[in-house]
Amino acid sequence: MKKIIKNGTIATAADTYQADILIENEKIAMIGKDLTADGAEIIDAKGAYIFPGGIDPHTHLDMPFGGTTTKDDYETGTIAAAYGGTTTIIDFCLTEKGAPLKEAIDTWHKKATEKAAIDYGFHLMISEITDEVLAELPRIIVDEGITSFKVFMAYKNVFQADDATLYRTLLQAKELGALVMVHAENGDVIDYLTKQALEKGNTDPIYHALTRPPELEGEATGRAAKLTEMANGQLYVVHVTCEEAVEKITEARNKGVDIWGETCPQYLVLDQTYLEKPHFEGSKYVWSPPLREKKNQEVLWNALKMGQLQTIGSDQCSFDFKGQKDLGREDFTKIPNGGPTIEDRMSILFSEGVMKGRITLNQFVDVTSTRAAKLFGLFPKKGTIAVGSDADIVIFDPEVERTISVDTHHMAVDYNAFEGMEVTGEPVSVLSRGEFVIKDKQFVGEAGKGQFLKREKYNAEWKRAAGKKLPV
Amino acid sequence: MKKIIKNGTIATAADTYQADILIENEKIAMIGKDLTADGAEIIDAKGAYIFPGGIDPHTHLDMPFGGTTTKDDYETGTIAAAYGGTTTIIDFCLTEKGAPLKEAIDTWHKKATEKAAIDYGFHLMISEITDEVLAELPRIIVDEGITSFKVFMAYKNVFQADDATLYRTLLQAKELGALVMVHAENGDVIDYLTKQALEKGNTDPIYHALTRPPELEGEATGRAAKLTEMANGQLYVVHVTCEEAVEKITEARNKGVDIWGETCPQYLVLDQTYLEKPHFEGSKYVWSPPLREKKNQEVLWNALKMGQLQTIGSDQCSFDFKGQKDLGREDFTKIPNGGPTIEDRMSILFSEGVMKGRITLNQFVDVTSTRAAKLFGLFPKKGTIAVGSDADIVIFDPEVERTISVDTHHMAVDYNAFEGMEVTGEPVSVLSRGEFVIKDKQFVGEAGKGQFLKREKYNAEWKRAAGKKLPV
Amino acid sequence: MKKIIKNGTIATAADTYQADILIENEKIAMIGKDLTADGAEIIDAKGAYIFPGGIDPHTHLDMPFGGTTTKDDYETGTIAAAYGGTTTIIDFCLTEKGAPLKEAIDTWHKKATEKAAIDYGFHLMISEITDEVLAELPRIIVDEGITSFKVFMAYKNVFQADDATLYRTLLQAKELGALVMVHAENGDVIDYLTKQALEKGNTDPIYHALTRPPELEGEATGRAAKLTEMANGQLYVVHVTCEEAVEKITEARNKGVDIWGETCPQYLVLDQTYLEKPHFEGSKYVWSPPLREKKNQEVLWNALKMGQLQTIGSDQCSFDFKGQKDLGREDFTKIPNGGPTIEDRMSILFSEGVMKGRITLNQFVDVTSTRAAKLFGLFPKKGTIAVGSDADIVIFDPEVERTISVDTHHMAVDYNAFEGMEVTGEPVSVLSRGEFVIKDKQFVGEAGKGQFLKREKYNAEWKRAAGKKLPV
Amino acid sequence: MKKIIKNGTIATAADTYQADILIENEKIAMIGKDLTADGAEIIDAKGAYIFPGGIDPHTHLDMPFGGTTTKDDYETGTIAAAYGGTTTIIDFCLTEKGAPLKEAIDTWHKKATEKAAIDYGFHLMISEITDEVLAELPRIIVDEGITSFKVFMAYKNVFQADDATLYRTLLQAKELGALVMVHAENGDVIDYLTKQALEKGNTDPIYHALTRPPELEGEATGRAAKLTEMANGQLYVVHVTCEEAVEKITEARNKGVDIWGETCPQYLVLDQTYLEKPHFEGSKYVWSPPLREKKNQEVLWNALKMGQLQTIGSDQCSFDFKGQKDLGREDFTKIPNGGPTIEDRMSILFSEGVMKGRITLNQFVDVTSTRAAKLFGLFPKKGTIAVGSDADIVIFDPEVERTISVDTHHMAVDYNAFEGMEVTGEPVSVLSRGEFVIKDKQFVGEAGKGQFLKREKYNAEWKRAAGKKLPV
Repeated sequence: MKKIIKNGTIATAADTYQADILIENEKIAMIGKDLTADGAEIIDAKGAYIFPGGIDPHTHLDMPFGGTTTKDDYETGTIAAAYGGTTTIIDFCLTEKGAPLKEAIDTWHKKATEKAAIDYGFHLMISEITDEVLAELPRIIVDEGITSFKVFMAYKNVFQADDATLYRTLLQAKELGALVMVHAENGDVIDYLTKQALEKGNTDPIYHALTRPPELEGEATGRAAKLTEMANGQLYVVHVTCEEAVEKITEARNKGVDIWGETCPQYLVLDQTYLEKPHFEGSKYVWSPPLREKKNQEVLWNALKMGQLQTIGSDQCSFDFKGQKDLGREDFTKIPNGGPTIEDRMSILFSEGVMKGRITLNQFVDVTSTRAAKLFGLFPKKGTIAVGSDADIVIFDPEVERTISVDTHHMAVDYNAFEGMEVTGEPVSVLSRGEFVIKDKQFVGEAGKGQFLKREKYNAEWKRAAGKKLPV
Repeated sequence: MKKIIKNGTIATAADTYQADILIENEKIAMIGKDLTADGAEIIDAKGAYIFPGGIDPHTHLDMPFGGTTTKDDYETGTIAAAYGGTTTIIDFCLTEKGAPLKEAIDTWHKKATEKAAIDYGFHLMISEITDEVLAELPRIIVDEGITSFKVFMAYKNVFQADDATLYRTLLQAKELGALVMVHAENGDVIDYLTKQALEKGNTDPIYHALTRPPELEGEATGRAAKLTEMANGQLYVVHVTCEEAVEKITEARNKGVDIWGETCPQYLVLDQTYLEKPHFEGSKYVWSPPLREKKNQEVLWNALKMGQLQTIGSDQCSFDFKGQKDLGREDFTKIPNGGPTIEDRMSILFSEGVMKGRITLNQFVDVTSTRAAKLFGLFPKKGTIAVGSDADIVIFDPEVERTISVDTHHMAVDYNAFEGMEVTGEPVSVLSRGEFVIKDKQFVGEAGKGQFLKREKYNAEWKRAAGKKLPV
Repeated sequence: MKKIIKNGTIATAADTYQADILIENEKIAMIGKDLTADGAEIIDAKGAYIFPGGIDPHTHLDMPFGGTTTKDDYETGTIAAAYGGTTTIIDFCLTEKGAPLKEAIDTWHKKATEKAAIDYGFHLMISEITDEVLAELPRIIVDEGITSFKVFMAYKNVFQADDATLYRTLLQAKELGALVMVHAENGDVIDYLTKQALEKGNTDPIYHALTRPPELEGEATGRAAKLTEMANGQLYVVHVTCEEAVEKITEARNKGVDIWGETCPQYLVLDQTYLEKPHFEGSKYVWSPPLREKKNQEVLWNALKMGQLQTIGSDQCSFDFKGQKDLGREDFTKIPNGGPTIEDRMSILFSEGVMKGRITLNQFVDVTSTRAAKLFGLFPKKGTIAVGSDADIVIFDPEVERTISVDTHHMAVDYNAFEGMEVTGEPVSVLSRGEFVIKDKQFVGEAGKGQFLKREKYNAEWKRAAGKKLPV
Repeated sequence: MKKIIKNGTIATAADTYQADILIENEKIAMIGKDLTADGAEIIDAKGAYIFPGGIDPHTHLDMPFGGTTTKDDYETGTIAAAYGGTTTIIDFCLTEKGAPLKEAIDTWHKKATEKAAIDYGFHLMISEITDEVLAELPRIIVDEGITSFKVFMAYKNVFQADDATLYRTLLQAKELGALVMVHAENGDVIDYLTKQALEKGNTDPIYHALTRPPELEGEATGRAAKLTEMANGQLYVVHVTCEEAVEKITEARNKGVDIWGETCPQYLVLDQTYLEKPHFEGSKYVWSPPLREKKNQEVLWNALKMGQLQTIGSDQCSFDFKGQKDLGREDFTKIPNGGPTIEDRMSILFSEGVMKGRITLNQFVDVTSTRAAKLFGLFPKKGTIAVGSDADIVIFDPEVERTISVDTHHMAVDYNAFEGMEVTGEPVSVLSRGEFVIKDKQFVGEAGKGQFLKREKYNAEWKRAAGKKLPV
């Protein structure tokens, strides 16, 4: 059935204008003034912004971690995402050393296939480069449509890869057309610092931050950037939190290195003092890398504004305060890392970013949707409002004022990291491939309707623009 | 009459997609698949890109300089611009010390009004800040729609303003909502170096470059950036040519300073050795700042790619080789500064930038059109292909290969600075507010049809996005 | 008569060791253990350090400024210097535009010749480069022994030179073997800011600091450094106060530019809040450049430690609080700039620097004496304790604790800028060319005994070491 | 017996002057004009410089490496050093994982005790931090007088330590008063690159350089500097070869980090092209880090001049071309790393540094002798010419011109890395604790006369200067 969204103000990564949108066969068919179509459902978006559905390039749903599993699975996670205006996620598929990569991918498909309410893709973790892994990679990119690999420089003895593995992954990815993602913290030194802290009886959540200082993120980011430069490769640094890391990324970009940076809402609005909250409440704010000193927030905002950082991931990775975060009551290293952020990612960016004049409306769309689509091989199917693109659309009321709270959120977890924060703006309705998943602020979608997205190779978009002859 | 452009690939600063465009009443009325409209003229753009008309934010037409006047006036200049895919120019209105600003503006209107074949706006030069100037400025911004002021740090005893004037202009512009533009070279030292060169009998064109070394551009750029930071103002650095200057702009941006940089096609593809051409041919390549050592070219390209620089101006300022450049045969300081670039600006960016993979197609649109529209108060009327925008459109054949030459160009001047350069891609047809100015590579427009553009204040776009309630 | 200083610990810019010193014919004749000499006067320095007499490369004695004259002249100024351990000063000889340089030098000789109690040299101010000045300079360097020229980038319409003058002075000095000194602040913008402040009724001393922000010192320092790089010249930046300026000097040095930086005791231990002292007491702390925010102090100390800055000048320029600083009660621009610092320069460096572990003892000697001697053509006659050098010697008690105060100081001025500051260490006795000027903390010298020092060309020391054949 | 060195020009790290030196009881007893002493041996140094004996802080004598052992042992090595003007070496004592550190020290004492012709100390390698190592360290510093520890970031699976070990060593050294030394190259990536090279059949010596690019030295240097900053520790970076590494050290120093850098003669005058010499001659130039592109040489020289680097080590580690370097004929990774440089270290610095005006004579003394003495706890016993210091003295003819060659050198190895290089200046005679070891260019010393030097803790000198009360 056709739909027409009328009277809204469309915003893309470049444009802001008033027009109607005709949706047909899951896609945007037409944009114009005063559109009409026989039998079309009319959606009045008067006073609202029309954004492309958000793309969250960094989620961990149904993920095992330290003996427990994230509270939000593909059902609750994707529904909450939809409430927040996100219509696509790219989730991390964890692999195990020694096991075929394919196995891990199958496992992840099982987690998602009957539960996802919105479309999704996978990134693949690379923990070591063996002959078997090398043999499997080309097939995974082509057949599985997984075109980004993540390497961890931290989590010693768990996920951590050494520099040679990172370097080889960069070389391999370059050849195959994949984008390498990196968690950049110096795991060796963190491992020592955490052991030292525990030895001294420093077990409170704040020691999570104190044993992972920003110097170690800056150092690792610089190291990864240098290896990328040497490999003439392509790198995406996840969850950048601090000035030190921003500087390293910028320095490399200015030398022509193909490197990109993501930050997360939590680093933009929360700070290290949250880990000191009494009654073990600090555990709710345990992310890796940790929240930083407040002064970094303006650095991150400016980095988004000036293009030093390019995307916003949620790093959604939720654990209940009771029963999960709890595991670390006596020992901060046992606190599951991560928090619930998938739902509020876009609202925070809009309210704190656009409404406070730190980024423009078009930059908001770019960092929350378009740029991720381009980097991860989903563009222009996803990430924009343009004729021919999937009708993944958010109708956003920019005036409503509300308070973020566990009482009203839709994630499965028992607290909200942004509890009590007042924001301006909220998605009213959200469409995924032309169908409402959120309508008038209620979920009307269905678990399992989300489709797996086989993604294109890195820079396919670039090459199409630059080199390929136009279709006849 | 309505027009429909069919089968092209539309490219904006964010998007690339295939769709038809319906034009009605000078504007883009609709974008969609398989559009039809009764009585519409159908334009087949199969195999072509559809770009927003180029915006050249830096031209000097009909401008007196050193006892002569630029060869191209508003008629030949804007027609040549149209041939090259440019549908809007912003020209510099020169003022005289002591005379009311309004006088200069009137003079410039006279130059343009019956000659311009495409739309145009004015920047205003500020050479000193007197009480009279201060009194006039607010009115000029509002009534005249001139929202950008240029200050020269070079051309001693001619245009050069001192640092206090630059600083006051920054403060004043901030208050009034204008953007300050700066020609950043250290005029005092250049003045000394040129005198020294002449004294030593060094009169050849190459001494133009040697007496204006990149250090002096870097220094002045850093100085202007620092004053902008102090004034919490907004600055646009025209014609950036070298690594030194790029570094200063980048450093300031990364600290949150509201500073922008423009480069020009000549600095991206020509270099200092051109000034050494025999038989006084070097004089053809005399720009200020001068062409630089070749190594700067990749720095500039990368700066466009990474967002360190944001726009491409032509700095069109053409003089005949015979009869004008000639004036400096015995003395390089008498060579009129500038060259003919308005026509080839976009072709060079497309061919050397997009086709060689240095910038993406969307970046091409941004730097040649969209960003200038946003910075200079013309957006979204100009600078994009979106419903409601002016139908300023370029239908661009990306496959044709051709050679740039004075024999085929449309500027009035007797040489082409890019003579012999082979480029890929050419505008086939160009529309200005829905009417063809170029059709099948022939000018079909009319001198005088171009309209003067009263521009909005700086960042009106920003404020509209960030703060204003949406229209009901 | 011979003298032997026994039992002290000698410290030079490189060494620290215990030995006796034999003085004969104004010079150090021998250094050794258990020295004896017939008829020698024995001076027991048990428990004391033996330093080379301090060299203060930056003083203004008997200098007219803004309608008044510095309180300390060559008599009181050099006696106070001697009390503080300084045995050589290099004073600034002010010139007048249009008048022969020689006239100014003669005037300065008259000020000094019958009054100086210690040895002294002159720097020469260059305010413009005319043919007459050019003609005079070579003679001045050779005949007058004045081998350093100062250029002001600030004090608009008074001392300020333009960039071309600075650049030409750098070129000229390079050729002649002189060192250029620069007062680096952007005078044009300061001029505007001060006028603005007065216009708004902001007349208090603190506005002196607020109208000369560190950005303007950093900017001018960078500009001067860049011109030095271009000229392949040699530059000495006087009174560096802030991080911005240190960065510019360091950046240039690391590129191989021959540039040096001086700071002053006041910038190391006082800060901008002193200008806010009530009852117009802030006027006592009016220097140009002004005192800065406290955070700059550690930057300056570290710069001395790491060799980013190399010398300590006092910038002695004293005016009474009553009757002189007073002139600016209604208008901070009328407060004579400067303060009394000649006496406490070395004590502050020792107490705050050496005793607090910020610099080593050898660095203390280097920055307060040796480096200045080397840079300004006085080495090894002055600036070290070595056989053959002038017996300019300080016997310094490193343990005594005392309080700096106007009640005990020996300058002619009615306040002390460091009033109440507790320091460790004090000169007990001071010898100038082998004669006591201070003995047991009492002045025993004589006005007029100080000799004028014809200084060698810049880097004569270098060349002697590097190129010249050794004497037979 | 007493000796008097007459008529020479003494140069220290600060001073240059003519005087005689009286030597008595192994020490410098007196310095003065026209010294006499009953029965003293008179040494005429007319026309010569008198330097403090060189201190080579970086040697590998009698060291096993890759299945062979360096050709020069303590006898030939120290004799060659003496010929070159070096009177003290600090040699690296290699430890084995698992074995007590004391064992390694005993082994090293055995190598040295009957062979050393000049005085020597040891640095200790730390390859892992175990409880046993931690327990042993304090005793080693105090009892053994070994106050510097070296950590390798390269040589994977051989010497390489991980970042946590480096960090812990920094913390431990800080507490104990030792200086940490680091070989800064990224061993993981080098390991991969070398394997790749071999796999591709790239076995020639040049691949040694190509698999250890400067990026990997810069990266590791930055990492080590960052860990030093975090640990608030003290670090000495050995054999710095390239601009990337100099930048990292400088950046850290400017932030106040206590970090020092050493370079070596080979990096100052040889370059990467030497590894391409035919007939496997390239193997003679295999050092780690490798020789770099020529442009780095001026960066290193400037770094010495400006104080960004502070010392010159030889990194003496000699292997015969025939029979040892040979081992790598089919595989560059089997070429023993290192070369013969102990003898020519000072001559090259004098000839290329002082005589070419790149560093001053005093800087020459500082970087080849004084600074190492200060950093490694030997000052003022060693490293200067001052009363009370050991009479380790070089009488240096600055005019003689000669050619470096294996034919005339005194090392045991069958080639000279600087073969054919023409230098100006040569030690004529060398004294160690008052006794000639070289007299009129002939070795007159004795193996076994060199003494082991128990060194003081790091910065003992500093603390003595700054805090301690003076001796009565």
